[in-house]
Parts: sequence; structure tokens; C-alpha cells
Amino acid sequence: MILLLGATGHIGQAFGRELRRHGRCFVPLSRRTLDYTNFENLFDYVRGMKPELVINAAGYSGRPNIDDCEFNRIETFQANAVLPEVIGRVCQMTRTPWGHVSSGSIYSGARVFENGELSIVRDLNRPGVRQLHSEHPELFVGFSELDEANASFRCPPCSFYVGTKALAEERIGTGGQNYIWRVRMPFNERDEPWNLLTKLQCYPRIRDDLNSISQVDDFALACLQLWDRQAPFGIYNVINPGAVTTREIVEMIQRTLCPERAFDYWLDDEEFYRRAVQAPRTSCILDASKLLRAGVKMRTVREALADSLRNWQPAEELRISRKKSSFGDGRARDR
Amino acid sequence: MILLLGATGHIGQAFGRELRRHGRCFVPLSRRTLDYTNFENLFDYVRGMKPELVINAAGYSGRPNIDDCEFNRIETFQANAVLPEVIGRVCQMTRTPWGHVSSGSIYSGARVFENGELSIVRDLNRPGVRQLHSEHPELFVGFSELDEANASFRCPPCSFYVGTKALAEERIGTGGQNYIWRVRMPFNERDEPWNLLTKLQCYPRIRDDLNSISQVDDFALACLQLWDRQAPFGIYNVINPGAVTTREIVEMIQRTLCPERAFDYWLDDEEFYRRAVQAPRTSCILDASKLLRAGVKMRTVREALADSLRNWQPAEELRISRKKSSFGDGRARDR
Repeated sequence: MILLLGATGHIGQAFGRELRRHGRCFVPLSRRTLDYTNFENLFDYVRGMKPELVINAAGYSGRPNIDDCEFNRIETFQANAVLPEVIGRVCQMTRTPWGHVSSGSIYSGARVFENGELSIVRDLNRPGVRQLHSEHPELFVGFSELDEANASFRCPPCSFYVGTKALAEERIGTGGQNYIWRVRMPFNERDEPWNLLTKLQCYPRIRDDLNSISQVDDFALACLQLWDRQAPFGIYNVINPGAVTTREIVEMIQRTLCPERAFDYWLDDEEFYRRAVQAPRTSCILDASKLLRAGVKMRTVREALADSLRNWQPAEELRISRKKSSFGDGRARDR
Repeated sequence: MILLLGATGHIGQAFGRELRRHGRCFVPLSRRTLDYTNFENLFDYVRGMKPELVINAAGYSGRPNIDDCEFNRIETFQANAVLPEVIGRVCQMTRTPWGHVSSGSIYSGARVFENGELSIVRDLNRPGVRQLHSEHPELFVGFSELDEANASFRCPPCSFYVGTKALAEERIGTGGQNYIWRVRMPFNERDEPWNLLTKLQCYPRIRDDLNSISQVDDFALACLQLWDRQAPFGIYNVINPGAVTTREIVEMIQRTLCPERAFDYWLDDEEFYRRAVQAPRTSCILDASKLLRAGVKMRTVREALADSLRNWQPAEELRISRKKSSFGDGRARDR
């Protein structure tokens, strides 16, 4: 049995869908069904239920965005830094393997091959850098799991959200029976507020940045496959290979969904930070080769984006299908 | 393992507390962690997880009260009548024993010993009846599990809520491997909106009626004990023995909690229905002797009320203790 913490969040729901789809025995918990943030509750529960694996998909990423974390620091710290420690301790004491959902946003920039060496470029939005990327993308190499986080409380600037995610990775460490699975800007075909593709369609104006991103169902499946294949414990960047600019994604949205609105862009980061957001945002490229070498297959980011947009389920349709399903099956409905 | 459906509701939470307190393996589900209202979801889940027992503590009783069910008839019908059928079918197909939380409010009145026979008095609030009860309570006998519901869509008047609960009992039946556990006006020491003792402290004016009621933690424990003791499947009135008037409860509240406010009563039911509520309310006395004969011990209603009031946890204290617990244990908090 697999114990899934944070089952009602968007990452937890993706794990739930994959586990159900594969007919796996799992227990989806939310803090409302059992307060697992309390050490004793969780310890007793894990000791009693003896899961083969605990998945921590719980966290606080703010609503509607991470700026909210700047104002809810206690809740953010508690969900992203304290809770993973509690889970880690419980799993260590009960000798239960576990996986923690972390974030790729603890990096800023990429490694760039220049003058015979891979140096770190922290700001991908500098004009010269983006120019170089458009002409020679092959010179850009993503951060690997061996690179230290360069957006964290130790390496400012970083948002409070990012700081707590980096802190959790540092505290959990990689010596135990645990995975650290890094997701980045999740998306899929479901038009929901957390979805990058939904966000881009709602922003009044868009920042054109360059990123590695994760199709969230691919992400959940890949994490489970690492476990099933008994891949070595440790950190994995779980992203769809390839980096993509926001402008490219918007063009795909325009081609596939044909929205009526026009999309405007912020002139530069100076304007973006002055007028749009509070907390620093990171753009980064991550290297997925450790994941791929472990035998997990991943679609490229462009394939994943194209599929998600082709199968796009607008919010209104999702609402109706949820309403229908809660009536039970057809037989019960007909009576 | 015991599967608990409706784990975030007030009855579900009581089951959760008892199961945790006794170190039992259980899986608390809410519709948000897994949509068990969908037959296939639930069927796959029960077949995969093979619980020894399924507890259906899900239901819709309206907010702030059952009047709300009159306006949300689809939701009420679906949660209280359709869902139990879905669960019953899944449990039958997977041969899984289950227990359904029903309500004592499908009865109105009591049986009264008069002229050598037990006749049904449907309205306990008629002045002569209450007078007789205050002088000769021994003449009043509660409805037993053998009595048919007399407040239902078949026997109007009844609220829409009560109608759906009675319908579910009828549809589930007692031929299978299932319990029907009837709760009535739940209360305990937690100052929460569903709690009878909280409600009485909030009503601007009170209806003085006469009822059998259930301390909700006693209720959950008793249901689990029936299962553990392998008591025969079927219907059980799970109430604290003894009937009590609202006026008596209010006097206990005044003595123990010493609230600053005064308590006023509606003149009679005519005024109550004209000015306070929409849907018919039932007052009834239930007989707990089947439960007691099965070997389950229950405190009297007055003992349970006195304990709940002595250990009263005001809403503000509950809020603080919930906030504290979600920080994890002391060690994590101190870092």
C-alpha cells in the first residue's frame, strides 16, 4: 500500500489519478481527513498501516501565486519545511521509504558552455543570453542533481516559497531511503488555477522567460516508475526534456485553442517586477538525464504541451463532468 | 483495515478519533481525496484495498440546519439516498461487510403505555403529553428497531432530509452483511456548528422538545464495538439511554457554563413553525435496549451531557489547538 499525503492538492491529485489508473492500493490523505502534520498522528498511522512507500505531495505554493507565500510565511514554512522534516523522521523511525515533491525553482538560470567550460548564467532574461539561446540552444545545459541550489535563503534573492523548498531539500538530505522529486511549473489538459497553461491564458500581460517545465501526470507517473524500478534513492529532476520560452507556449495556445484575446508581454524584467509581482521569480533550465538514465521514458516538453492543448478541458466542462460523476453511475441515476 | 467514508464530516471525525485512539488500521476518505460517489471508483478501490469493514459516515444534513436540505434537494438526495445504494452494491459485489450511519429522526413521538397497550403518540409537544411525561415518564417507551419509520416520504409530514434518510434505510434493507446505526442529535464537548450543545447556545429562541440524543463519540465507539463483538447485522438505535427535554439541557448549560445570555423559548410549536424554521422537525424517543443487549455499554444521556459540558472546549480554544497541532510536534516547532 502507498500512503499519499496532500491528496487534494494538484500534485496529489495527479498521483491519485495515476495510482487509480494502474489499480494500485493506496491511501489518499488530506490534512482534513487525518492531521498528519502532527508527528504522533502520522507516526501512529504509518506504524499501524505499514505502507510500502509514503509520498509527500503536500505543500503550500500560495493562491493565486507564490506572492501569497510572502504574506503567509508561517503557513508556507510549516507546510514546505517543517512538514517534510516530520515525515522524514516518521519514515526513518518506521523504516519506510518515502518520496518528497520538491521544486525545480530552487535554481535560477542554466549552465552555458563558453570558452571550454560550463559556467553558470543566473539570469536567462538578459537580452544577450536569450539571443544566444535562440541561435545556439545546444550551448545551454540544465542544472543537474549534482548542482547546488542557487536560489535559496543561502543564495538570495529568492521568494519565500523557493527558500522553504530549498531548505526542505537540505534538511531531508539524500542519505536515507528517500526520493526528492523536483517538479517545475506543472501543467496538463485540465483548465484549473494551478495549471501553467491556465495561468498564461489569464495573465493580463506575460513575462517572456525560458524554462524547463513538467507535465504533471508525466511527473507523477515518472516518480512512481522510479520507485517501481527500484531506482537508487536521491534527487531527480522530473521535467519533460527540453526548455521552452513562454512566447512559444503562448503561440501554441493561440494555434490550438484560438482564444479571442490578444497576448501582451512585459517590456522587460524591470517593468515586470515594478508593476506585476512582489516576490522574485526564477527562470531555469534543468537536466533530466538522470531520470532518463534510470529507465523512465519522458515525452519532450513540446510533445507534452501539444497533447495537453489538443485535449484541453475548459473549466466549465470540468465542472460539469465533476457534477455528473458525483451522482454515482448510470444505474443509480436512473432510479 | 477499516474504510471510513465521509471522514471529514462530524460523524466521520468521531469515527476517526475512536479508530486512532484504539490504534486501528483505517483509511479515512473524503470525496475530495477520492470520489467514492462514483460506483467504479469505489468498486475498484474496495476490490483493491480489501477492507474488513466499510463505514459510511457520509451524508448531507444541511448548513446551518436541515432547512438547507429543502433548497438543495439534489445534493441531499444524492448524498443520503443514492450514495448508500452505491456503497451497498459495491459491498455486496465485493462481499464486504459495512455499516451505514442513519438517523433516529425518521421517527416522530414515542410509544405510550395506555389502557393496557403501547400506542403511538406522534406529537410529544402536545401539552397533555408533556404533562403526562413529566409526571409518569415510565409510561413512555421509545421506538424499537422493529417499529417502522413514521416520519418518511411514505408517512408525511417529514423534512426532505428525514425523507431521504428513511428512504436509504428502506433501500439498504437488513438482509445483507450490513449494520444500520441510527444517531440522533449528536453532541460532545467540542463547540462546533453541528453540535446540539453549540446550537442551543446560539439559537435566538429555543423550542422545548423531548428527545433521545447521542453523544457522538459514544456513538462511534458503540458502532465499532458492535462490529468487534460480531453482533448480528441489522438496525441499532445508538443513543444514550433516557429521554431529555431541551429545557433540561439548557438548565445544565446554565449551571455548568454560566453563559451571560438569557434563554427564551418559543411559546408553542405553532409560533416555532411560523417564525423560526421551514421544514418539519421531529421529536422522538428511541429504545436503546437492542444495543445494550448486544453487550455495548452506554452512559445515560444525563451522564453524557454532564461530561460534555464539564469538558467543554469553546470554539476559540479548539481553533488555537488546531493551529498548534498543525506545526508538528514540539521538537519541530522549537527549531
